[in-house]
Amino acid sequence: MHHASDILLSLFIIFVAAQLGAELAQRLKLPGVVGEIAAGCIVGPSVLGWVVPNEPLEVLAEIGVVLLLFSVGLETRLDDLKRVGRSAFLVGVLGVIIPFVMGSAWAHLSGFPWNKSLFIAAAFVATSAGITARVLQELGALQRVESRVILGAAVIDDILAMLLLGVVVALQAGDSVNIGSLAVVLVEAVGFLLVIGWVGTRVMRRKSHWLEGPVNPLSPLTIVLALCLGLAFLSTKFGLAAIIGAFLAGMIASETTQRESLEHQTQPLLALLTPFFFVITGSKIDLAQLANADALIMLIVVTLIAIVSKLAGGFLGALSLGRRGATIVGVGMVPRGEVGVVIASLGLTAGVFTDKTYAVIVAMSLLTAMVTPPVLAALLRQKDGPVP
Amino acid sequence: MHHASDILLSLFIIFVAAQLGAELAQRLKLPGVVGEIAAGCIVGPSVLGWVVPNEPLEVLAEIGVVLLLFSVGLETRLDDLKRVGRSAFLVGVLGVIIPFVMGSAWAHLSGFPWNKSLFIAAAFVATSAGITARVLQELGALQRVESRVILGAAVIDDILAMLLLGVVVALQAGDSVNIGSLAVVLVEAVGFLLVIGWVGTRVMRRKSHWLEGPVNPLSPLTIVLALCLGLAFLSTKFGLAAIIGAFLAGMIASETTQRESLEHQTQPLLALLTPFFFVITGSKIDLAQLANADALIMLIVVTLIAIVSKLAGGFLGALSLGRRGATIVGVGMVPRGEVGVVIASLGLTAGVFTDKTYAVIVAMSLLTAMVTPPVLAALLRQKDGPVP
Repeated sequence: MHHASDILLSLFIIFVAAQLGAELAQRLKLPGVVGEIAAGCIVGPSVLGWVVPNEPLEVLAEIGVVLLLFSVGLETRLDDLKRVGRSAFLVGVLGVIIPFVMGSAWAHLSGFPWNKSLFIAAAFVATSAGITARVLQELGALQRVESRVILGAAVIDDILAMLLLGVVVALQAGDSVNIGSLAVVLVEAVGFLLVIGWVGTRVMRRKSHWLEGPVNPLSPLTIVLALCLGLAFLSTKFGLAAIIGAFLAGMIASETTQRESLEHQTQPLLALLTPFFFVITGSKIDLAQLANADALIMLIVVTLIAIVSKLAGGFLGALSLGRRGATIVGVGMVPRGEVGVVIASLGLTAGVFTDKTYAVIVAMSLLTAMVTPPVLAALLRQKDGPVP
Repeated sequence: MHHASDILLSLFIIFVAAQLGAELAQRLKLPGVVGEIAAGCIVGPSVLGWVVPNEPLEVLAEIGVVLLLFSVGLETRLDDLKRVGRSAFLVGVLGVIIPFVMGSAWAHLSGFPWNKSLFIAAAFVATSAGITARVLQELGALQRVESRVILGAAVIDDILAMLLLGVVVALQAGDSVNIGSLAVVLVEAVGFLLVIGWVGTRVMRRKSHWLEGPVNPLSPLTIVLALCLGLAFLSTKFGLAAIIGAFLAGMIASETTQRESLEHQTQPLLALLTPFFFVITGSKIDLAQLANADALIMLIVVTLIAIVSKLAGGFLGALSLGRRGATIVGVGMVPRGEVGVVIASLGLTAGVFTDKTYAVIVAMSLLTAMVTPPVLAALLRQKDGPVP
């Protein structure tokens, strides 16, 4: 009974902090998500200590970001994504190579041996689609060609980041890299995405009346939510992030005739659950570890490398959209968010990172997540011309 | 990463099991909730062992039942509740006294000393509003006078059960019962409900345009959800169940001009989250402990006492509604659900219950929850005459 009380208090604080943060940010013409992350930092252990991330809260956060990417998928058609396939592929590949090369160069120059440097560099690689997706959604920009390139690139990015992580973990453990098994992992992941995406959209296009079969009047929603949870789980089994599966489920659901009511019904779910993701993300910023000149300088350097390298990769990959479009794509790829945090945690457990390096990498991941939304919003608003 | 995978699998299994269970039950003309609880028993440790209740799942279940009672409150006006105040009070009081007397008599006759008998009897007392509320909602019967009596009585019931638990715990520990401190607890709980209910509904009736103040277009929903979490937390601080606060929040929100859109927006939240409550409830049924004649006979006796005593209390208390109405109220008060489980857990930890007694009390709580919905549904359908 007492425990239920504690967790309800945490839920209440997180939810209210998110609303206040988002409101304040939006009044300052910033995207709401910036306010939610900042609110998380304030109520988290770093400042007020009212909310301490724990397992139930992490699970709620995970459900929140899964639903967010599901709803983004719901606004994305597979055909639209295919049309930008080439650019998305280039952005994904360059957006992995450039940060990885620059990251490992920096780490090696800072004195880390090569195998550790490559591990650290892996934390520079993976884009967190959640943050960008939320900004694009907030501004109603998901239908723009740049948004599609970003979303497609995020999927490719995630596949490459997973492969890269496999490589650096093997190198770190002193094992030789087994090209054969990496190829299998690659083929499995790509195969999973292609088969599910292709079959799923095809079936839904023709058979979406099946969703009305059950007695429950909300059955279209409950069936696609089951699909979302199922594919989120499956994609983790293929080494991909859960949000990739959720995005795929949303894309499949977007082919149904019930799409509009599904979009409508997803709104309250996002309103309740996504704040947990962003507030918990913010609560992980450890300000104390960064409260010295040494760490602060390292953080600035690392963050600059992270931003410049990803921006360059995205920009070069999307040049076919023109310089403006390419800039938007580059900026959209900058946030590392939770993926960087996860890799840094792995590194800490494996003894690759010191506490300082860990805090810096985590702060970099979150800083890129904080910096991106206002810039992206400004760029998108600026270009508010006659865009479809 | 691996852990996220496990929890996503649990979420998927629970959600799908709930949908299948509810669908099957409804096709068999049973309330969906019966199917969800049965599905929980099947996927839980007792049978398949696919889902093992853990902390994150318990939290999701708690959020589910909190939202359920919030949505029930949203369909309940304070004025309507006041009109049935006398009946609800009688039902609440008799529905506590009769089960408590019969329960302690049975326990003492079975050989328990008086202080333990009173503790065991406390598990017979508290009605779980969640199960009945779900059935009433499924059948669209929340506007009936019997439903209002049941909901009002559930609030009174919860206050009395809390006081009673305080008494038996003190007796168990060998302390004398401090009437003064019990009176304080009673006054605090009643005061909390009256003040929040009275002030809240009054403010909302006049100032519901405040809900539109924030930038977020979904702000009416997010504000009342914050209220729901806040009052759920507060009511645990006053010794009441979280769902009482959630019900209160819903009732306050029902006075707003945005009531209809709020009802609409709550539907997807219920669709996603209440299955966790019912499936997790079902997964706690420990069939193995009951697989012998001795325990089975004890279970049947205990369950019969639990049903008859509560039925009698509800029936006698609601006689002013006529015999049919009184029967509906009596049946509606029968489920013990999670409250009985919580008291049994307390008893187990305190060394009052043996493992067998514990399993029997838990099974009784859940059995009453399983038995009630079909009977209640049949009664309500039967009476489908010209009722308001």
